[in-house]
Amino acid sequence: MTTMIRKENLKTPLRWAQVGGGKGSQVGCFHRDAAHRDDNYKLVAGAFDIDAERGLRFGVDELGLDADRCYPDYKTMFDTEAKREDGIQVVSITTPNSTHYEIARSAIEHNLHVICEKPLTFTAEESLELKELAKQHNRVFGVTYGYSSYPTVAQAREMVQRGDIGKIRVIHMQFSHGFHAARVEDNDPGLQWRVTKKASGPTYVLGDCGTHPLQMARMITGLEIDKICCMRRSFVGTRELEDDGHVMVQYKGGAYGTLWASAVAVGHVHNQRIEIIGEKGTLQWWDEHPNQLMYAPINEPFRPLDRAMSYLYEEARFERIGAGHPEGLYDAWANMYRNMALAMAAADSDDQATKASIIYPNIDDAIEGVRFLEACAESADNESKWVTL
Amino acid sequence: MTTMIRKENLKTPLRWAQVGGGKGSQVGCFHRDAAHRDDNYKLVAGAFDIDAERGLRFGVDELGLDADRCYPDYKTMFDTEAKREDGIQVVSITTPNSTHYEIARSAIEHNLHVICEKPLTFTAEESLELKELAKQHNRVFGVTYGYSSYPTVAQAREMVQRGDIGKIRVIHMQFSHGFHAARVEDNDPGLQWRVTKKASGPTYVLGDCGTHPLQMARMITGLEIDKICCMRRSFVGTRELEDDGHVMVQYKGGAYGTLWASAVAVGHVHNQRIEIIGEKGTLQWWDEHPNQLMYAPINEPFRPLDRAMSYLYEEARFERIGAGHPEGLYDAWANMYRNMALAMAAADSDDQATKASIIYPNIDDAIEGVRFLEACAESADNESKWVTL
Amino acid sequence: MTTMIRKENLKTPLRWAQVGGGKGSQVGCFHRDAAHRDDNYKLVAGAFDIDAERGLRFGVDELGLDADRCYPDYKTMFDTEAKREDGIQVVSITTPNSTHYEIARSAIEHNLHVICEKPLTFTAEESLELKELAKQHNRVFGVTYGYSSYPTVAQAREMVQRGDIGKIRVIHMQFSHGFHAARVEDNDPGLQWRVTKKASGPTYVLGDCGTHPLQMARMITGLEIDKICCMRRSFVGTRELEDDGHVMVQYKGGAYGTLWASAVAVGHVHNQRIEIIGEKGTLQWWDEHPNQLMYAPINEPFRPLDRAMSYLYEEARFERIGAGHPEGLYDAWANMYRNMALAMAAADSDDQATKASIIYPNIDDAIEGVRFLEACAESADNESKWVTL
Amino acid sequence: MTTMIRKENLKTPLRWAQVGGGKGSQVGCFHRDAAHRDDNYKLVAGAFDIDAERGLRFGVDELGLDADRCYPDYKTMFDTEAKREDGIQVVSITTPNSTHYEIARSAIEHNLHVICEKPLTFTAEESLELKELAKQHNRVFGVTYGYSSYPTVAQAREMVQRGDIGKIRVIHMQFSHGFHAARVEDNDPGLQWRVTKKASGPTYVLGDCGTHPLQMARMITGLEIDKICCMRRSFVGTRELEDDGHVMVQYKGGAYGTLWASAVAVGHVHNQRIEIIGEKGTLQWWDEHPNQLMYAPINEPFRPLDRAMSYLYEEARFERIGAGHPEGLYDAWANMYRNMALAMAAADSDDQATKASIIYPNIDDAIEGVRFLEACAESADNESKWVTL
Repeated sequence: MTTMIRKENLKTPLRWAQVGGGKGSQVGCFHRDAAHRDDNYKLVAGAFDIDAERGLRFGVDELGLDADRCYPDYKTMFDTEAKREDGIQVVSITTPNSTHYEIARSAIEHNLHVICEKPLTFTAEESLELKELAKQHNRVFGVTYGYSSYPTVAQAREMVQRGDIGKIRVIHMQFSHGFHAARVEDNDPGLQWRVTKKASGPTYVLGDCGTHPLQMARMITGLEIDKICCMRRSFVGTRELEDDGHVMVQYKGGAYGTLWASAVAVGHVHNQRIEIIGEKGTLQWWDEHPNQLMYAPINEPFRPLDRAMSYLYEEARFERIGAGHPEGLYDAWANMYRNMALAMAAADSDDQATKASIIYPNIDDAIEGVRFLEACAESADNESKWVTL
Repeated sequence: MTTMIRKENLKTPLRWAQVGGGKGSQVGCFHRDAAHRDDNYKLVAGAFDIDAERGLRFGVDELGLDADRCYPDYKTMFDTEAKREDGIQVVSITTPNSTHYEIARSAIEHNLHVICEKPLTFTAEESLELKELAKQHNRVFGVTYGYSSYPTVAQAREMVQRGDIGKIRVIHMQFSHGFHAARVEDNDPGLQWRVTKKASGPTYVLGDCGTHPLQMARMITGLEIDKICCMRRSFVGTRELEDDGHVMVQYKGGAYGTLWASAVAVGHVHNQRIEIIGEKGTLQWWDEHPNQLMYAPINEPFRPLDRAMSYLYEEARFERIGAGHPEGLYDAWANMYRNMALAMAAADSDDQATKASIIYPNIDDAIEGVRFLEACAESADNESKWVTL
Repeated sequence: MTTMIRKENLKTPLRWAQVGGGKGSQVGCFHRDAAHRDDNYKLVAGAFDIDAERGLRFGVDELGLDADRCYPDYKTMFDTEAKREDGIQVVSITTPNSTHYEIARSAIEHNLHVICEKPLTFTAEESLELKELAKQHNRVFGVTYGYSSYPTVAQAREMVQRGDIGKIRVIHMQFSHGFHAARVEDNDPGLQWRVTKKASGPTYVLGDCGTHPLQMARMITGLEIDKICCMRRSFVGTRELEDDGHVMVQYKGGAYGTLWASAVAVGHVHNQRIEIIGEKGTLQWWDEHPNQLMYAPINEPFRPLDRAMSYLYEEARFERIGAGHPEGLYDAWANMYRNMALAMAAADSDDQATKASIIYPNIDDAIEGVRFLEACAESADNESKWVTL
Repeated sequence: MTTMIRKENLKTPLRWAQVGGGKGSQVGCFHRDAAHRDDNYKLVAGAFDIDAERGLRFGVDELGLDADRCYPDYKTMFDTEAKREDGIQVVSITTPNSTHYEIARSAIEHNLHVICEKPLTFTAEESLELKELAKQHNRVFGVTYGYSSYPTVAQAREMVQRGDIGKIRVIHMQFSHGFHAARVEDNDPGLQWRVTKKASGPTYVLGDCGTHPLQMARMITGLEIDKICCMRRSFVGTRELEDDGHVMVQYKGGAYGTLWASAVAVGHVHNQRIEIIGEKGTLQWWDEHPNQLMYAPINEPFRPLDRAMSYLYEEARFERIGAGHPEGLYDAWANMYRNMALAMAAADSDDQATKASIIYPNIDDAIEGVRFLEACAESADNESKWVTL
């Protein structure tokens, strides 16, 4: 019953490096798993740790790399690799947020493609600068909003772009969990820094959670935000930043909607949802059950569109396993890394048309996210006034 | 497996009349069904129709009333019945909205209990005046927000009032359907007047749909609104009034939330939902499946609390039929009419404590609804500024 | 948004009596509510109680009947009423199961239409005899399998009969609750007799629960059972009769399926479900959410068909209230009583075509139920051998 | 919000080979992905193809193996590798079913651990023989029933084994899809051989689908089947083997239940479900949403137990990614391969206690599956008589 389909991969894997992702990093191995899944990347170098010795041992002992390609820092790596014939072509950055900008900037200047964790930067200016730089160097700049690489999201995008649901009227975005409903940070230092301004920037949960459905809405609809109005609360009163926030959003062109991000929604597990209502149909997507896309044509009931079924568009048929068998977030990340690799190959052969046709979470998404968060903070701090992006 | 429980009824039914509800009225017979269900009311008189002759025939032929108690208009009825020893004690008003105020006022002045359709009046002043008058006359004034009389809603109210979910943080209210996503009013005159200001007042879907979950949130939580911010659209461009509206709500005491009302939500059937998130638990209620109340205690998963199960509070145990067998809106309306009858009996025997303890949708709910809609219109018409109620 | 539709009712209500249903009976008032809902019946007489005096007081005090029409027993009632010009036309029987046969027989012989609680009789012979007698007297004989009168069931029947799902292949029937998973009968005498052979007949849960989906499958598909194989258990070991039973069913014509009835299914509330799989489509119905019928055409996903929506067949459009608003079991019972009244009127005017076209749970359903239970007991008591009906 | 936890892996990967799984094989790469996920296996050799040249090129070009370890057939591989100091330690067999026996036998005789696709063999004798042989050689023998390695299944097993749901009463097993409801084999040669006896053995859908939930029930409950009764149909009449089958199952010790396998269940996507009802609780698992385990304690409602939540047992806490983020079948397969590796390491160090404590789908499961299918065919071919296993 299972028919496994794989989209074409690269003939030769890209030579890949990591900055960060060493011992104790959990996201580091998630990136490695995703990158290696389809053999489009081969990890050949790294600056895995701020502690150079520990990074070296990790690279050699855990990952089997050559010792001379386990570098003490990103600068040394970029400079040294640039001189090799077989030097790295792409780098993934999983360091603390405040260091993204300088590392990414240096990477592009060394002519590397970049894959960076979100949030990309703290200010929109920095992100815009990186975008411009990447453009000048013809480099691919991916940002790891991994949820957006499920086949069901691709199906939603195709349906919207082909006009299946007509002109969009209302968009609801939501990411609400309840893990931080009580003061759990006393035993969770990882949370402690997230709720403080200095480490986290202007927002906690709006950035940490809210930007995910925001990015997904953007990828699916292509709509741009005109202005927003935000109210937020720190329900656990000792927190400097919000643990719950609501935003009204008005898009250019007439559509509007809402975004809710919460860390205090008792009973909610993850609950990242997006609903897009058009004049001819409605789509609903829920990240806890990502193998189904709910669809209602006008005057008809909702029905689930299941991943891998023959009634889906070809653009959404990059499943790794037959219908019924569930895929998970790991598979979505592998899709994301593959798409980025295909775009990089297109860039390298200067095939701009192909490069432009490949969908992956990119720096424009990241820029919108940063600008959105700046506007949210400005609104919330000024009696929830409306702020134009 | 079925255990049917009925709460105590009145020993002698109240003598009841209708204004409106004659031939062609559909809500008229819904009121009669609900009122007669438990034999707490006996229909003895009516001014059923603006056409006196047609009203007379309806009362006599369809309802079997005495001809001399089928009146040409409400004034004649109130005056004449007041002189009878066995005159009416309570009247239900189901006439066009613009006439509610004068009929209700006259009814109270004739010392009648009043049950009135929503929206009660177009302005908050009128509603406040009726409230004051009813208080002076020791009359019960019910308003037919019928959804709020399901046992599951009573369970939610009890849980909140007893502190089961702790201090309330976030409230989401929603009533979204898709029946008017296209321009269907060309073939539906009943809709045509609803989307015009003159007949409908300052709002269409916010009033027609949105006030229902608003009333329910109020009944369950008792929270009062501080201020709101509203944006709305007429997506079908020929409509004078909104067919979709979003509201941000801030309550006194720190809770906040949102309300969404829509008539263009393709695929949604009714979708009246309410979610109440507290510091210790969350409740979710959905009117399409009203026999279940979803409940999540902190750090535990959601589970359905089923109507009539032994784990519910006694206050929610007024089921008419055993667990598993579904009840519907008709049963909820019968509950509403019964509770109003019990309150009327308490008022008549001047038992103010009992009267105050009985829960039913009342004139305070109606007043909040009117003030809410006034504020929504003011906000939406002024670039979605915040408006204090 | 609400459009209430009512199918035509009788111009003159049928003169109706009850045998049983007096003080302490809970099903008695359920019958009265359902019968009176649409004014097709008027209760004019009764033999409400085995205690004649108590029955009299109940009829006079609680129901407002004339004292001389509150009879000490059914025989007196049938004889006396037969002599009146305005005598009763129809009787509902809600007495202990063992008395159904003789009361129903006498009623038909007095030329009355009969509505009887299930199970109709303990043996198939008795039921067949009543059927023959009713036919001779041109009387309607209804049996109160009330679940089958939801509009969604009518929709399912229409879809099957019109060939929408093609030739039927598999039928799954289920009614599983968990209320008797432990030995609760010690505090529940009503359950005590149900699990003993003498009072209950050859089965407990197969009859009490299992015959409901059996009847529904029969009404929807019209298929006849060829043979069955049954295994059952008394998991609470002190019970004489089964509290859980599984049946394999083979229908004439090639379809087959299963039936599961349980009183020990922990966590299940009611869980009466039926699934009908045809070569071109599948239907699923669940009594806890009876306003939706799930439907999957071949190669397409399941979608809910909601009661009262315009895409349903006309035959399923007897809703009492608009879409979205839920109906409950009480509404289904009212539908059942109405359909029986329409059939009775057709019989009285000798309009056999109309009489035959009206769908309601009837004596053929009851006969199949009795024969099914006889076969189940025979199979289960003989090492689950196959038994032909 | 994400906490990724990984159970301990082997310090040195096992040297691993494949028989089958070459060009065009889809399951081959699924095994490689799963085996490589946690670095517990390193692919060093293979006999990938019946066409030796094609197998060689696949191993060298696609997998980067040394040419001299890409063998023309399994015999050569086993003999040659046995002589190397760094020879293979474990082999995965993904060849046609009819060849499993001889390859597996040879592998054990060469002292290799074995991982084999299901169904293991066509007869129970052969499977029993392999079991005995593996025991003599102290070899691990895994069979790839991959669904059973979800953390939620481990949670179910723990709950049953600790007595959380009490003594088991009823087990329902189901795997029903609708992909073959019509005669699709004309365009699908892969299906054509599955519905013929010669290639497939005595069953089609009972074996292809039904043995999965059968294995899962066995892993969770440890119950052994006493006897079964089976009925089956080829609804698409041109098929030699059944495309739908129902089985009644009686377990040793008093529990009983049903199994349904179908390829003609229109609208069902995969629908592998298992329900286990005990005297104190009920568990439900559904493979399309494998991150949730439904659980109802007696007298309480069902609630989802979500993967990775802190309320789960430690034995079920081998998640690869935090709660809310979904895992898929690929992750379950990786778990399966890891557990098998841990068992192999324990066997190699003769740590029998550890070896016995590790849960993975094993040869006993496979033996029960073969015996079950033999009994089903015997029953179905003899008027659905009861057959003792």
